Amino acid sequence: MAQPQIKRIGIFKCGNIGTSPLLELLLDELADRKDIKVRTVTTGSKMGPDDVEDALPKIFELNPDLLIVISPNTSLPGPRKVRERMSSSGLPGIVISDAPGKRAKEEIENQGLGYMIITGDPLIGARKQFLDPIEMAIFNSNISKVLAIAGVYRIVHQEIDQVIYAIENGQKPDLPRLILDLKVVRDRSEFNNPYAKAKAMAAYGLAEKIADINVQACFMEKESEKYLPLVTCAHEIAQIAAKLAEEAREIEKSNDTVMRMPHSKSGKMKIKTKLMFPPVSDETLYDKNV
Amino acid sequence: MAQPQIKRIGIFKCGNIGTSPLLELLLDELADRKDIKVRTVTTGSKMGPDDVEDALPKIFELNPDLLIVISPNTSLPGPRKVRERMSSSGLPGIVISDAPGKRAKEEIENQGLGYMIITGDPLIGARKQFLDPIEMAIFNSNISKVLAIAGVYRIVHQEIDQVIYAIENGQKPDLPRLILDLKVVRDRSEFNNPYAKAKAMAAYGLAEKIADINVQACFMEKESEKYLPLVTCAHEIAQIAAKLAEEAREIEKSNDTVMRMPHSKSGKMKIKTKLMFPPVSDETLYDKNV
Amino acid sequence: MAQPQIKRIGIFKCGNIGTSPLLELLLDELADRKDIKVRTVTTGSKMGPDDVEDALPKIFELNPDLLIVISPNTSLPGPRKVRERMSSSGLPGIVISDAPGKRAKEEIENQGLGYMIITGDPLIGARKQFLDPIEMAIFNSNISKVLAIAGVYRIVHQEIDQVIYAIENGQKPDLPRLILDLKVVRDRSEFNNPYAKAKAMAAYGLAEKIADINVQACFMEKESEKYLPLVTCAHEIAQIAAKLAEEAREIEKSNDTVMRMPHSKSGKMKIKTKLMFPPVSDETLYDKNV
Amino acid sequence: MAQPQIKRIGIFKCGNIGTSPLLELLLDELADRKDIKVRTVTTGSKMGPDDVEDALPKIFELNPDLLIVISPNTSLPGPRKVRERMSSSGLPGIVISDAPGKRAKEEIENQGLGYMIITGDPLIGARKQFLDPIEMAIFNSNISKVLAIAGVYRIVHQEIDQVIYAIENGQKPDLPRLILDLKVVRDRSEFNNPYAKAKAMAAYGLAEKIADINVQACFMEKESEKYLPLVTCAHEIAQIAAKLAEEAREIEKSNDTVMRMPHSKSGKMKIKTKLMFPPVSDETLYDKNV
Amino acid sequence: MAQPQIKRIGIFKCGNIGTSPLLELLLDELADRKDIKVRTVTTGSKMGPDDVEDALPKIFELNPDLLIVISPNTSLPGPRKVRERMSSSGLPGIVISDAPGKRAKEEIENQGLGYMIITGDPLIGARKQFLDPIEMAIFNSNISKVLAIAGVYRIVHQEIDQVIYAIENGQKPDLPRLILDLKVVRDRSEFNNPYAKAKAMAAYGLAEKIADINVQACFMEKESEKYLPLVTCAHEIAQIAAKLAEEAREIEKSNDTVMRMPHSKSGKMKIKTKLMFPPVSDETLYDKNV
Amino acid sequence: MAQPQIKRIGIFKCGNIGTSPLLELLLDELADRKDIKVRTVTTGSKMGPDDVEDALPKIFELNPDLLIVISPNTSLPGPRKVRERMSSSGLPGIVISDAPGKRAKEEIENQGLGYMIITGDPLIGARKQFLDPIEMAIFNSNISKVLAIAGVYRIVHQEIDQVIYAIENGQKPDLPRLILDLKVVRDRSEFNNPYAKAKAMAAYGLAEKIADINVQACFMEKESEKYLPLVTCAHEIAQIAAKLAEEAREIEKSNDTVMRMPHSKSGKMKIKTKLMFPPVSDETLYDKNV
Repeated sequence: MAQPQIKRIGIFKCGNIGTSPLLELLLDELADRKDIKVRTVTTGSKMGPDDVEDALPKIFELNPDLLIVISPNTSLPGPRKVRERMSSSGLPGIVISDAPGKRAKEEIENQGLGYMIITGDPLIGARKQFLDPIEMAIFNSNISKVLAIAGVYRIVHQEIDQVIYAIENGQKPDLPRLILDLKVVRDRSEFNNPYAKAKAMAAYGLAEKIADINVQACFMEKESEKYLPLVTCAHEIAQIAAKLAEEAREIEKSNDTVMRMPHSKSGKMKIKTKLMFPPVSDETLYDKNV
Repeated sequence: MAQPQIKRIGIFKCGNIGTSPLLELLLDELADRKDIKVRTVTTGSKMGPDDVEDALPKIFELNPDLLIVISPNTSLPGPRKVRERMSSSGLPGIVISDAPGKRAKEEIENQGLGYMIITGDPLIGARKQFLDPIEMAIFNSNISKVLAIAGVYRIVHQEIDQVIYAIENGQKPDLPRLILDLKVVRDRSEFNNPYAKAKAMAAYGLAEKIADINVQACFMEKESEKYLPLVTCAHEIAQIAAKLAEEAREIEKSNDTVMRMPHSKSGKMKIKTKLMFPPVSDETLYDKNV
Repeated sequence: MAQPQIKRIGIFKCGNIGTSPLLELLLDELADRKDIKVRTVTTGSKMGPDDVEDALPKIFELNPDLLIVISPNTSLPGPRKVRERMSSSGLPGIVISDAPGKRAKEEIENQGLGYMIITGDPLIGARKQFLDPIEMAIFNSNISKVLAIAGVYRIVHQEIDQVIYAIENGQKPDLPRLILDLKVVRDRSEFNNPYAKAKAMAAYGLAEKIADINVQACFMEKESEKYLPLVTCAHEIAQIAAKLAEEAREIEKSNDTVMRMPHSKSGKMKIKTKLMFPPVSDETLYDKNV
Repeated sequence: MAQPQIKRIGIFKCGNIGTSPLLELLLDELADRKDIKVRTVTTGSKMGPDDVEDALPKIFELNPDLLIVISPNTSLPGPRKVRERMSSSGLPGIVISDAPGKRAKEEIENQGLGYMIITGDPLIGARKQFLDPIEMAIFNSNISKVLAIAGVYRIVHQEIDQVIYAIENGQKPDLPRLILDLKVVRDRSEFNNPYAKAKAMAAYGLAEKIADINVQACFMEKESEKYLPLVTCAHEIAQIAAKLAEEAREIEKSNDTVMRMPHSKSGKMKIKTKLMFPPVSDETLYDKNV
Repeated sequence: MAQPQIKRIGIFKCGNIGTSPLLELLLDELADRKDIKVRTVTTGSKMGPDDVEDALPKIFELNPDLLIVISPNTSLPGPRKVRERMSSSGLPGIVISDAPGKRAKEEIENQGLGYMIITGDPLIGARKQFLDPIEMAIFNSNISKVLAIAGVYRIVHQEIDQVIYAIENGQKPDLPRLILDLKVVRDRSEFNNPYAKAKAMAAYGLAEKIADINVQACFMEKESEKYLPLVTCAHEIAQIAAKLAEEAREIEKSNDTVMRMPHSKSGKMKIKTKLMFPPVSDETLYDKNV
Repeated sequence: MAQPQIKRIGIFKCGNIGTSPLLELLLDELADRKDIKVRTVTTGSKMGPDDVEDALPKIFELNPDLLIVISPNTSLPGPRKVRERMSSSGLPGIVISDAPGKRAKEEIENQGLGYMIITGDPLIGARKQFLDPIEMAIFNSNISKVLAIAGVYRIVHQEIDQVIYAIENGQKPDLPRLILDLKVVRDRSEFNNPYAKAKAMAAYGLAEKIADINVQACFMEKESEKYLPLVTCAHEIAQIAAKLAEEAREIEKSNDTVMRMPHSKSGKMKIKTKLMFPPVSDETLYDKNV
């Protein structure tokens, strides 16, 4: 097999969900993959159609071989516009969004795009009386820990890695079509200890509950005495969910069974569990595409 | 005073430090500021000169009124190239980097740029036997919580906000020139309870220690039996530092003295402490520039 | 006002929810009320119509002035039979049940009975591969702590106390008609610190989530590899919810603001907050009925 | 062996100890045993002779094959009256009580009854300035967790199960005669890990200490400045004891060695340890009686 | 008042209790008192009469103005010998010992010595299968934290300070005669928050329980299967007691009400509570002697 | 081999570091070694040359076969004087000190003495506005736990044990020459689980950081608003470091792999890991000297 050409991964972020901030880093955690380059363009926390118009062209100009868009609720006008452009570009494209994005599922499929809808990537407590930059950052930290440990980030990068691998091998990629709910988290769990797995699932379940409460607090309640306790309550759940996720990983650590899957320089994942042993190649991970 | 024109903030990220992933979100946490638009271009985890060459033009094409670059060790070739371009562009520019960036302090000053060197934004445990995407994400989550709660993110966005405010008012901005070490964290702390403040400082001190240990582990030790315990130890410190930071905030919560500074739609910060009370404008925050 | 005659409170429990085990104790925590006697008859964990036929007459034979039935899902045949008998007895009657009981709301109203539907009193993980007597007891312990601290037990005994008070004063009682969901918990909270309140609400929200997951696990999933992680996950949530509730109370303790409402010997509630101060009578608590 | 007739278990509760609220549920945790029906009659928190006179007949009218009475200090007049009636009824009978009940040991033996005296089921902090319904419920939650995890509830239901099993098989049951102190808890422990066992024992030892302190606080100290710190201290011990018990179980969970003994539909206990494996019958558990 | 001459405090330690290792440091925590010099002679962990014979003369040769002996069970032959020599020396002398030392109370009084018997300074789990140097050190660390936070060390140094103060002022000192049990800890507590006080008391109560269990384990049980779980259990209690004590102090910290009483250079105690305020002299502390 | 004569170990402590208070107890934790007697003389917290002059002769008068001096910074005048006397006495001698003692390394070697410099035995927060006897004791408790669990105390007693063993066998002892830094702690770790080891190392790393901060706070900052937050911060690190160390040991406990090395009566160390198994002799521990 000839050395595949370096592939370029373009990521467009408009608005923010818990999976957004670290997304590109998941693909090349050690910055030493030789097979890909990642470029990201974002519109910050805003996601209006005008923001998209303004910034989206730049990601195309960076000549991606694969396009990924990540945003809250992909059925809103801004993210929808991104999908339309992606779809018409003919490039392989993947949409990552949160629970309300479920509504756009069929539309996305019709657009020929892949998707990962993360039901436990919850709306933040977006109320000015509550949310300042620090509260926002803490919430993201907590959600990020939950998604990392519960296995969501793993699924996200594995699915993208599979697509990249197919592209590198000149194949038509199977784009992911996944609603990442509690059952998927259960079925794709990497935990060795069943209670650790249950704790990680619980953390993810809590993240789903945050979404329910924050939707109530941000869109239905009108008075601050009503919504402030709700958003505060939701962020408390985020904090305890992060703690619960951490407990899950601590169990695996206490048994020296933490599964690690670093990317090799060639881009293929390696795998290891015992900390003091080296990672090994696991070709079975690539059976699907090869 | 006439309505200021919308200003465009350009952020260029190459490589990643703990302050990077959430940086643009700190400026507009509720996505409702009317005075600015934020655009970001990144090269993912890589930060080589070729990556910079490839992607940097895009951020200029997005017509920023203020440019911010954030990267590990700004004295490395890639980030240095960014600084050169920023400096020659004549735009107001700010460099954000971690402890090794201190070496470039004078160079940056000579380039007419501002800087914030965050001594407690530590090198990750960058060893392939240890670091996979999940470990990377957890580490970022922990560091992010420390930097948020210890007050570093506050200082970062306040300093940028001041610069934006000056630009909006047609003034020449005072660019920040800050080594954000434990003493600055102490002196600009927002904590009300002195033990909460001490805990937050402790968390930041721990983050500095992580840096020391990871430098040893990543650059000096050659054998995995030597460096693996060190990087694992460093990440354990990150975890406990996040916990300690959280304890600090919990104390403020128990006293209902958490200081919140949400951005108003006009871009000015408001301020509040008691949770159930509304935020108020605090003109004193802007004395320096007006 | 003449000394009211001692009133007899009859409680019939069929099957078990988290509010059941301690229900009668909530009414007379120190066993020194002079105004009431409480008698309970239960059918243990079973709640079939035959169990009800067998045991229900005993509670009537004990001559209650007020009847309370508590059971899971009051729309099931056994509990429904209890309600019919209560309704036809003409005695004031109150139905306490969990979320699925909501379906019977109108029926209960037509029966002239009061009700308290506790949405956060969740189904246990009722799978033989998982639930043994110890796991059952631990789950009840956790749920009990959540319901006590979040304020549900307070609302339950206050509502019953109001009814007793009316009966004692020869008035027709206003029977409670309450869906005890997160909003009611929010609005009737006794917490002084708003973050403590938010944590207690969060604990209650988690209890609601347990219910969702256990319904899935107990009634929809057929294979043990599918349902075992779910019930285990649900019980992990119960554990962390209890911990979160405890954190809430710890905050109030740290501020010496725990509200206590012991029953006086006369049956009226007293009230106190500072631990070292005596409780006082609070006539405002009885305004509604007097 | 022919299908045994369904046996009826009558439980009479007067007053409350930590083992009382969940007692009947321990015998049929999934509500699916075909071999027994459980009926309970209680006098709430009160336990005076008049309460007993009033309510006790009902439990006899429910035709039990086995009678169990549970109360604080069984040597007090109310519980003593229950024992007399039980003894003269000729039915097999078991007395469950707390540490002060030890005094009645010989009397109980002479009455031909079995007993389980639980030295770590402590007196509550029964002072009106301290104990309200919520504090009472929290205390019960904590003690319940300790007794469940330390193995006391296991011993209680196993002993009763053995008696039921003998009755079902037409044998004269060996009634339990047990002082359930720290040594018995040690010797009948189900823990696999010795430190988990030690933690669970420690939790039980703490419960014994609570009893010592609350006896002092409730019966000897007269001034609130003296007894309030003591009852509060005792309830703090209850809280930390519950936590310690939880830690013990967490260790077993981390090793996937939690022993579970669900009742089968036939009433026999099954046994399992690894969570994802099914429970098996263990005939050795019944050697004693068969 | 003339400058008092420097007084010499002699401490003789034979064997070890939890109060021993830091005793001399409690008197001069900053090493800057001008009024005293402290000299200690110890026989290590051994406390036989021959050890005493060998080492005791040295402490007399160091010319103390006040003699303190600290040991386990002061009624044992070694410590008894020390007391005899102290008594016959005519120097003011104080005996510090643990609960079994209570037996010697009258003897000590007849010897004209003062005493402090610390009921919550428990026997270590002295079994070779369990206790190695590390386990010993951890136990001492835990007990030391309990005794420090619960207020025992405060009482100890205050009582000694009072005696020193009297000696410095040429007065006959009132030697302490104290059984430091849970009630004394309650009555001399410095805690501001009543729940913090209760937690600290609870920690001390736990330490008393450790003593009970270790006496059982070390002197009564003969088989390792019997005593090993007991000593391990006792050390688990020590660990959780230290944690509980820490929780108590954390509450005071969260309220900025930690009482601090540093020694001034003159030897008098100063007092402060708010962390950022300076300590002040409190003459009331010396009323008793002046 | 003939029964070796009892050897006498003399310890001189001037001033205090975290290793001081328990040092002699580490050598004979059960007080039953037949081969040695330990005698200690101390000057309390003070360590001036006059204190040394006054007290040092006593330790020589106790006829030691091995002399150990432990103090802060051994290069200060008091401790230096001790070393001079030790050196000229011709007795085998060992110096134990903290990080600043590193400066005296060559001097000590020239004096023919052994040394152990413990880089993670940090300066206390020695500021009168902060440090009272209780704060001092808590700090020592925390540091002691870190040093015990991280393995420092083990190394200390093993090194001394080796020297004693050589002396007993008429050999010239190899005196230890060790800088006990994070790498030594890593390389001599007894932990079985690699994450437990990493946590223990992290705790030790934190202790090193405390030293850095307290040196800054005690010697460089002049104003209380500057140094008080620093010393408080340093003591917060001590507390969390103790907690982290405890977590490390908890992992080993959960795996029943805690290594214990009790001294036998003959003085030789035995070794065991599984709690319920007896310790065994391990001759390999003495290979070096025999």
